[in-house]
Amino acid sequence: MSPRVRRKVRGGIDLGGTKIQTVVVDSKHKVLGEARGETPLEGGPQDVADAMVITLREAVEEAGVETAAMSGVGVGSPGAVGEDGSVSEARNLPGWEGMFPLAETLSGELGTAVRVGNDVQVATDAEFAIGVGQPYKSLLGVFWGTGVGGGLIIDGKPWLGRGAAGEIGHMVVKEDGKKCPCGRHGCMEAYAGRIAMEAEARHRHKKGEKTELFKLQEKKDKPRLTSGIWEDALNDGDKLAKHLFDRAIEALGTGVASAVNLIDPEAVVIGGGMGVRFGQPCADRILEEMKPHLFVDENPPVVDVAALGDLGGAIGAAMLVA
Amino acid sequence: MSPRVRRKVRGGIDLGGTKIQTVVVDSKHKVLGEARGETPLEGGPQDVADAMVITLREAVEEAGVETAAMSGVGVGSPGAVGEDGSVSEARNLPGWEGMFPLAETLSGELGTAVRVGNDVQVATDAEFAIGVGQPYKSLLGVFWGTGVGGGLIIDGKPWLGRGAAGEIGHMVVKEDGKKCPCGRHGCMEAYAGRIAMEAEARHRHKKGEKTELFKLQEKKDKPRLTSGIWEDALNDGDKLAKHLFDRAIEALGTGVASAVNLIDPEAVVIGGGMGVRFGQPCADRILEEMKPHLFVDENPPVVDVAALGDLGGAIGAAMLVA
Repeated sequence: MSPRVRRKVRGGIDLGGTKIQTVVVDSKHKVLGEARGETPLEGGPQDVADAMVITLREAVEEAGVETAAMSGVGVGSPGAVGEDGSVSEARNLPGWEGMFPLAETLSGELGTAVRVGNDVQVATDAEFAIGVGQPYKSLLGVFWGTGVGGGLIIDGKPWLGRGAAGEIGHMVVKEDGKKCPCGRHGCMEAYAGRIAMEAEARHRHKKGEKTELFKLQEKKDKPRLTSGIWEDALNDGDKLAKHLFDRAIEALGTGVASAVNLIDPEAVVIGGGMGVRFGQPCADRILEEMKPHLFVDENPPVVDVAALGDLGGAIGAAMLVA
Repeated sequence: MSPRVRRKVRGGIDLGGTKIQTVVVDSKHKVLGEARGETPLEGGPQDVADAMVITLREAVEEAGVETAAMSGVGVGSPGAVGEDGSVSEARNLPGWEGMFPLAETLSGELGTAVRVGNDVQVATDAEFAIGVGQPYKSLLGVFWGTGVGGGLIIDGKPWLGRGAAGEIGHMVVKEDGKKCPCGRHGCMEAYAGRIAMEAEARHRHKKGEKTELFKLQEKKDKPRLTSGIWEDALNDGDKLAKHLFDRAIEALGTGVASAVNLIDPEAVVIGGGMGVRFGQPCADRILEEMKPHLFVDENPPVVDVAALGDLGGAIGAAMLVA
């Protein structure tokens, strides 16, 4: 590999509540190597940072480059991201209520510049730059996984508000509704987030409702009900899984329609672990559930599944250092 | 008056479901004359246009200028506004489901250029340019009156989406909730719009609940329950009026909080007939009702009542021809 090419190699890390996805990309965002690890469920931010370094090194190895060859590494993180790359209140991650200097820590370990952005916004930016959002100047990204995150492109640019825009999962779909993992009531995520769906399934199962979900979990030896387990249960005709999945799609339709009534974007991109797993048929069902609530119902936005799939967050993170 | 000054005089018309408010302003948006008329409740678009011309001529007279002296007239209109100044689907106006060439008609009558914009967006633009929104680069306008309309300023510019952004009144606050005048279910406007509040009051009154609202309406000889009637009933301790008013504030808090969670603006401005009538204490109550739903609850946006009061829509309309 020539020195010129080597300089343009970048790393990207998508830090999720369940998975750490890493990529090494070239100057054209082409993936040269990728790796995936599990997010530690115990410990604290340093343990998570260590897992991020290990998983990135695997992608570096697959790409056939050296860690020092990367001109920079971008990170998409949940929680509140400071301009200095610190992260606080990442409540889906273990022991991460307070502030942790993530960029500084990773930079020290990796020996290269590290920039941190909001996980969902970088995934939206990636879909806008090189994914399904390319034809549009306004875009709403909806990332359905552990929780439900949102990202906005307005007039061709990312819109972050005062730093916390895009919390579509905490738009209220039902006043006095179900308690959300965030502690509030009636949020879209209270019905559609995978953590909330699992809690509801467990609660109903304990009360005697039949379901395969937890047998499948045991069989697959997973710490949580993954998107794959939900898919298997649905394919097997599991009634409780179907009920909770349908309810999630309904809440997504309501919340996304509300967002569309407010900002009227050209397109909505559906990503995240669940969104990517269930693909375009799932995006189509969300659109159907949006329709009864759309104010301009004869002109709905395009609703497409994320083109970059599971890798969008990591590719978007790498764009932070492009 | 010198010819120079005369050339810079502009007209503005705020076309509401209940009132037509007109202004004549100078180059610095100072109001030289204003007038208010009732929106016809019967007939069709031409009758409404005639009433607009009459009401504007009254403002022109008060300003001591001549109609021909105006360099242009701007109109803030409900419904779907075309680029040519046509208006369709203005469902709060009589017989206005189809398309009507409003700019062309008014221009013919008045002998000057006419531009038409969205009523709520021009009111938001006015608050942004010369009202309470001046210190901010992002702003959500919430206009609480006959219905509930919204306007957006993003990154210092009006955001119209594909032409229909700002329909905050039709964000869903309660899935499977109350039927809205728009025909959908659970919209914020189903609880907070004055038309919906009146319908609910009438329904409950017929079923036997006590209220002064309709006696006050008769006494004041009004075709509808105006903001003033609601205020009088609340001041008299009317229980049904209080219940419906509180429910409206609750729905406003929920819907505005959802909007803030999505776009995270610096400020929210509360206007419209109800908002202006009940003033800053009402804006403060809406903020209190927002708080349980705000995702970043330690950093709420500023929530202020519209500084331009009832005239903001007409002044903002005049800005269309500035």
